[in-house]
Amino acid sequence: MKLRVDLLPHGNYSDTVLVIDVLRATTTAVTYLERGAESLLLTSSPDVALSLKWQPGVHDDAGEAVRNEQYLLGGERGGLAIPGFDFGNSPQEASQQNFTGKTIIMNTTNGTAAAHIAAQSGSRVLLASLTNAHAAARRAKALAVEEIAIVCAGTDGRVGLEDVYAAGVIAEYLLALGELSVDDGARIALTLRRSAGNPLEALSSSQHGQTLEKLGLGEDVRYAAQVSESTLVPVMSEVQDIEGALRFVAAT
Amino acid sequence: MKLRVDLLPHGNYSDTVLVIDVLRATTTAVTYLERGAESLLLTSSPDVALSLKWQPGVHDDAGEAVRNEQYLLGGERGGLAIPGFDFGNSPQEASQQNFTGKTIIMNTTNGTAAAHIAAQSGSRVLLASLTNAHAAARRAKALAVEEIAIVCAGTDGRVGLEDVYAAGVIAEYLLALGELSVDDGARIALTLRRSAGNPLEALSSSQHGQTLEKLGLGEDVRYAAQVSESTLVPVMSEVQDIEGALRFVAAT
Repeated sequence: MKLRVDLLPHGNYSDTVLVIDVLRATTTAVTYLERGAESLLLTSSPDVALSLKWQPGVHDDAGEAVRNEQYLLGGERGGLAIPGFDFGNSPQEASQQNFTGKTIIMNTTNGTAAAHIAAQSGSRVLLASLTNAHAAARRAKALAVEEIAIVCAGTDGRVGLEDVYAAGVIAEYLLALGELSVDDGARIALTLRRSAGNPLEALSSSQHGQTLEKLGLGEDVRYAAQVSESTLVPVMSEVQDIEGALRFVAAT
Repeated sequence: MKLRVDLLPHGNYSDTVLVIDVLRATTTAVTYLERGAESLLLTSSPDVALSLKWQPGVHDDAGEAVRNEQYLLGGERGGLAIPGFDFGNSPQEASQQNFTGKTIIMNTTNGTAAAHIAAQSGSRVLLASLTNAHAAARRAKALAVEEIAIVCAGTDGRVGLEDVYAAGVIAEYLLALGELSVDDGARIALTLRRSAGNPLEALSSSQHGQTLEKLGLGEDVRYAAQVSESTLVPVMSEVQDIEGALRFVAAT
């Protein structure tokens, strides 16, 4: 079995792909499922998300559009909630809510885009974070035939230390689960994981961690630094019924 | 001053850019200049290189095209010399030749492409390798106003350990030359440089190093692992007179 870590999304996958955007999309995705969400719809753009918010062609007595009650919208641009969305992209905020029976429509700057790149060619796509690191490694190992690819979302086309660190944590778990041949990206991630201190130090010192701290979102960095608190792994569903959106459901 | 390391070319530079393709394009480029070459023309494609090989519209008595005597062609695809080229992309081979007065036209899979990406937006573009690491760091420091960007060429869109290691070596020199704020990429490169053993160990263990070894080009890996043997730095010339090609000249 091969282990490959792409420090930025590459776009050419053949087997099982773990998408990582630790700060914050994949951490938040895991939290939505932990808080009862039935599924996640990762959209290709904010517009696709907003178009799903309303029942097409239905208006109330006052002539206003009527909401799709089963959908809630979460997402960000520049770290801040998107106008018209119900939530930002905050795992800390999500952890305080009850999403039982709801589908969360997500759109974020880097994480949902990376999932769409992975889904273009990967056979199986999973979302991973530090919070579900153990479970994500086990699930990927169980699904993969020839190759596990860990894909770091990065930030605006540049490598993010927090994602590479998390890739190293998951790579270490995968190596503990069985023999793997590792590529240069995996070696770099493993080196960083072993040298960059504990998870909170690594995430807090990353450029994106510092940006979030400045935006008053430091609680999210601390939340995202918890390792293997969840056993849930968002897995791309075999049922893909909405154009421009990828449906993910919980697997344990 | 800011130091930024892009583990893959990004395409958005504002100031001074050091392009690294240790195995082998930038190492070979330095060697061509060391062996007397007057300048280097890094072309955007093999075809541009081949079109420069011949004098346009000139034929000899037998009706054959006539060569541009001042030009020699060096380059590779898949590690091997391109048909019609005079040389492969081998620094070891180049180190045995005398190129006095010649211009070398180069086209390679990753390195020359990375230089073209850097040149689209960077004000000053330099070629760096382990063999000129010290000189490249000093020259970049002298030229940069606000930011030094080290750009790793990678291999076919994926991160190469050998380039990130060399970026770490140069980043360490730059930090010794003065205070710098470093980005996530620079931190990852510095971590790798401090953990991945000596230059030959790092280069030999990289995927691309192993590919070259299998192609019988292990001498090139050993040549490229020499640190700061050269004081020459290929710098993009202010005179850019040929379409589809970037002219580099030696600076010390």
